[in-house]
Amino acid sequence: MINQYEISLPPFSRGYHPITSHIAEKLGKLPETGLVNLFLRHTSAAITINENADPDVPRDLAYATDRLVPEDDPGYIHTIEGPDDMPAHIKSSLLSVSITIPVTRGRLNMGTWQGIFLCEFRNRGGSRRITATVYS
Amino acid sequence: MINQYEISLPPFSRGYHPITSHIAEKLGKLPETGLVNLFLRHTSAAITINENADPDVPRDLAYATDRLVPEDDPGYIHTIEGPDDMPAHIKSSLLSVSITIPVTRGRLNMGTWQGIFLCEFRNRGGSRRITATVYS
Amino acid sequence: MINQYEISLPPFSRGYHPITSHIAEKLGKLPETGLVNLFLRHTSAAITINENADPDVPRDLAYATDRLVPEDDPGYIHTIEGPDDMPAHIKSSLLSVSITIPVTRGRLNMGTWQGIFLCEFRNRGGSRRITATVYS
Repeated sequence: MINQYEISLPPFSRGYHPITSHIAEKLGKLPETGLVNLFLRHTSAAITINENADPDVPRDLAYATDRLVPEDDPGYIHTIEGPDDMPAHIKSSLLSVSITIPVTRGRLNMGTWQGIFLCEFRNRGGSRRITATVYS
Repeated sequence: MINQYEISLPPFSRGYHPITSHIAEKLGKLPETGLVNLFLRHTSAAITINENADPDVPRDLAYATDRLVPEDDPGYIHTIEGPDDMPAHIKSSLLSVSITIPVTRGRLNMGTWQGIFLCEFRNRGGSRRITATVYS
Repeated sequence: MINQYEISLPPFSRGYHPITSHIAEKLGKLPETGLVNLFLRHTSAAITINENADPDVPRDLAYATDRLVPEDDPGYIHTIEGPDDMPAHIKSSLLSVSITIPVTRGRLNMGTWQGIFLCEFRNRGGSRRITATVYS
């Protein structure tokens, strides 16, 4: 059995934003045992799994990826879409746009402290879309 | 066909540790053709695939990720769990907690030099758990 | 239904190279709905998804990963295979060797601007092999 869902996220500000409940709601009833693949259809954002308890963690994650990939590097050639664009592409490849999560007893089977985050790397990224594929 | 296994790893010291044989043993008999997804249920460790021949490679991998994400950055806000905690979260997202590996002729079908590693980013991470999902 | 394909890529120079059409051609007719997992069988290269429109983007991606992981770090121990080898292993783990992409209406269902890239981190990496697994 395979089911696919197109999920549109609301526009988020630059930073890391929890989307677990948004995703779970769109997927609806999950199979007893299976896998969910989330695929973000964009090249200047990413999805990641990290701690969903303390909101300082996604704050620091955004800080750390901004520090790793600075905007003011004179070595970039692709600069026509603004100083936040090429760094956003780089962070997208470092973090990734495709995550596969197990489903167990009808639920996304992540660890206690894990949540799914949208990493918005653009200053104005707009609405982002995820293709979710559920296998069972 | 889908089968899931909960795998508990022994506690590892900080660093990158080969776990291919541990995983293969827990999975037991694999299907002729399929996929295995390994999902680490933690936010301060990661799993990765890299060279399993020279033990200097995982040593240097740990060195390089520690250098990329230093512990003494005064910009971190989430510091209450110790100086190794927030850097561990960052490295977890950079490396990833979910890997999918093909199964061919009943075996994990990695390249000759590839092995699976647990990346333990905490000084005392304790036992880590992986949910393995086998598809065929 | 599951099908596997061994794909040999032509040797590429160091850098990021678009391989979407090469992959799509080797996969042939895809199922109506499914997933494709691409698994690169090497430890000094990676596969990633990023912008396939402006060739300056893969150029800048290669520049950025080279800057993040310099070759002249005196802390590396694994140096016998040349100065480009250990940095290539590090970049391989940062980018990843396994990507899962949805298939919808018989096509790789990526976003408008997304393409698949081989990231060749060695100066002379030679031919690289990908195991592609198609699920439906």
